[in-house]
Amino acid sequence: MVAVSPLAPAAVPKLAPIDGVRLATAAAGIRYRDRTDVLVAVFDPGTAVAGVLTRSKCPSAPVDWCREHLRQGRARALVVNSGNANAFTGARGRKGTRAIAALAGKVIGCPASHVFLASTGVIGEPLDTGKIEAVLERMSAAATPDGWEAAARAIMTTDTFPKLATATARLGAAQVRINGIAKGSGMIAPDMATMLAFVFTDAPIAAPALRALLKEAVVDTFNAVTIDGDTSTSDTLLLFATGAAAARGAPRIVRAGDRRLSRFRAALAQVLGDLAEQLARDGEGARKLVRIKVQGAVSKKSARRIALSIANSPLVKTAIAGEDANWGRVVMAVGKAGEPAERDKLAIWFGDMRVAVAGERDPAYDEGRASAYMKRDVIDLLVDLKLGRGADRVLTCDLTKEYVAINGGYRS
Amino acid sequence: MVAVSPLAPAAVPKLAPIDGVRLATAAAGIRYRDRTDVLVAVFDPGTAVAGVLTRSKCPSAPVDWCREHLRQGRARALVVNSGNANAFTGARGRKGTRAIAALAGKVIGCPASHVFLASTGVIGEPLDTGKIEAVLERMSAAATPDGWEAAARAIMTTDTFPKLATATARLGAAQVRINGIAKGSGMIAPDMATMLAFVFTDAPIAAPALRALLKEAVVDTFNAVTIDGDTSTSDTLLLFATGAAAARGAPRIVRAGDRRLSRFRAALAQVLGDLAEQLARDGEGARKLVRIKVQGAVSKKSARRIALSIANSPLVKTAIAGEDANWGRVVMAVGKAGEPAERDKLAIWFGDMRVAVAGERDPAYDEGRASAYMKRDVIDLLVDLKLGRGADRVLTCDLTKEYVAINGGYRS
Repeated sequence: MVAVSPLAPAAVPKLAPIDGVRLATAAAGIRYRDRTDVLVAVFDPGTAVAGVLTRSKCPSAPVDWCREHLRQGRARALVVNSGNANAFTGARGRKGTRAIAALAGKVIGCPASHVFLASTGVIGEPLDTGKIEAVLERMSAAATPDGWEAAARAIMTTDTFPKLATATARLGAAQVRINGIAKGSGMIAPDMATMLAFVFTDAPIAAPALRALLKEAVVDTFNAVTIDGDTSTSDTLLLFATGAAAARGAPRIVRAGDRRLSRFRAALAQVLGDLAEQLARDGEGARKLVRIKVQGAVSKKSARRIALSIANSPLVKTAIAGEDANWGRVVMAVGKAGEPAERDKLAIWFGDMRVAVAGERDPAYDEGRASAYMKRDVIDLLVDLKLGRGADRVLTCDLTKEYVAINGGYRS
Repeated sequence: MVAVSPLAPAAVPKLAPIDGVRLATAAAGIRYRDRTDVLVAVFDPGTAVAGVLTRSKCPSAPVDWCREHLRQGRARALVVNSGNANAFTGARGRKGTRAIAALAGKVIGCPASHVFLASTGVIGEPLDTGKIEAVLERMSAAATPDGWEAAARAIMTTDTFPKLATATARLGAAQVRINGIAKGSGMIAPDMATMLAFVFTDAPIAAPALRALLKEAVVDTFNAVTIDGDTSTSDTLLLFATGAAAARGAPRIVRAGDRRLSRFRAALAQVLGDLAEQLARDGEGARKLVRIKVQGAVSKKSARRIALSIANSPLVKTAIAGEDANWGRVVMAVGKAGEPAERDKLAIWFGDMRVAVAGERDPAYDEGRASAYMKRDVIDLLVDLKLGRGADRVLTCDLTKEYVAINGGYRS
């Protein structure tokens, strides 16, 4: 049994119900023993959906399914399994997704195209969809507004703790709620929607507006996290809006630019940002959360690329795991990023300690202080390129022997 | 003491002298105890030089020095130290390189600009060039045509074995020789000249032709190796041609297109390829050499990018370390490469076993056979995209706990 990450939040947040969302979990025995591995969420009629999916050229069958059906923007159910990704499973995988969606639609009373699917786990092994079909009817009947932590637990793979986040926001005269769950914790890199994350709200927002809000919100949250630079075949982020808050006086929103959305927008960013940080805190084998900020770049995009070059560098990550203030490797990672940088302008901070300035070690550099800083759980790296006004921030974790151990034995 | 890599060649090759090259090594106490850390090579007048240097935006002071002086194409000496990279060392670093080159030039009787420099080791710590200056005169006087293994040992950092390669080729009526030495073994990625490698020949080839030959030869040798995707600040590959074979009847070559170079060209590729494979065999913590071939891509460039995406994937590399035939992670790495790929055409081989075909697991897949294959020292992965005729090959190694251990404690 893997111990819980030392970076786990002190407590699992308690999530209140979202009007129009009911949840159920089951242990279908897909791969794991003695734990749940299927989540079903049932939505009231009128629920809108938006999503962001992996950009992998080898997406899983459920990703293909979601991509096809997100266009129509309506959802009545979500079916998720852990233990098998149903990825690279060919015609059999596609047939399986159709069967699950058709059965769920039949049980709930909706077209199969209103059922959304996600699978996570091993790639390339056929998924026995019969095991999911066997529990679907019972689960749909048993679904309740509670059980958010159970839902988050059912979708875990190598995660050491369930990931939940919640926020509320004023929307017109009503208060609306946003609940999110996510799972990590390896094969995580940006340029995608990162693994599985499902976000639910009672706000009455139409699908096109929801799409725009989600696309905007992922940039600095899920897309700014990397564990290992490896982008999954299965990354799926779905946002469901039941609209139930309309009954409490929330206005129906059709445009993402609607000014009444300002608080909702902030709350959505908060939930996604919270989940993204939890992913980094539960990166496989992680012992340290690393927050990397790059400023003074020629653009935000350039700052992002440099920050990711640092965040994905095995040498930077292993030095942090070894509690070695090896800022020379940060220089290396800036140098290799392929972005504008001038060595002799560069400055680097570890926490509030400037360790390098104007292309060399800071005259005031103190190895003892730097070493003491590296013993912390959370490490802040700041790189100032002093070229322009572009800035960005990404989250990652250290690279430990445990990452190697976890990933050397995952399938077996 | 770190044990020698299990992938090390059975024996260190014995290198014969190169007319016009004399070598000396010394223990200057730069960082290590009880070992040599300075190499001086002295060349006869008339020696031509060409080089390929790191593309890092934060290059070391010696890299800047070489870049400036390679233009004139003449060399009389090479001074290399291990233990300190003299990188990100500001004005002091630049002054140090000038001082070493000036002193070596004075001792040998040549302009400082004919002295080439390289340093490897920790980044960001000032290099005490006085320690090198203190041994230069004695070394220059003591240099002899022998001592190739000693030269390769003096430039090692985390390497577990010295890297040497040699070949001979007919050039006109004469036989010419090419000797090479290199060091790894972390912070190694393509798009550069990979760490330090020095190649010497007695062939009489003018600098412009030498440059063209070297540029061509690195593409499928040093630039096709990756240990960790981290590009060093110090990568330096220099090729010195003394021209001494002219006295034995070798023709003087001024153009890289000269047809008399065909055998020399092949021998150069052989020496560089041999050294590059030794780098992969001595990747930090490596227990397996991984040869990745991608075919059926839309171009060679596209095949290279996909091969590198596989070679740099922590999840592929840890699975190989764990002897897990997790070909699903190869699918992932193809999918994330950002290059044209069609999931449902893809086929993957481990050795001569096809494990996946047409977008799913091979019907004949045999887990037992695949697992047995993974226990080998050398793992061959082949990906066929079935899109076009582009093919390429890269070398890497597995990612083990030892890599993390070595790099978590390098500086301290």
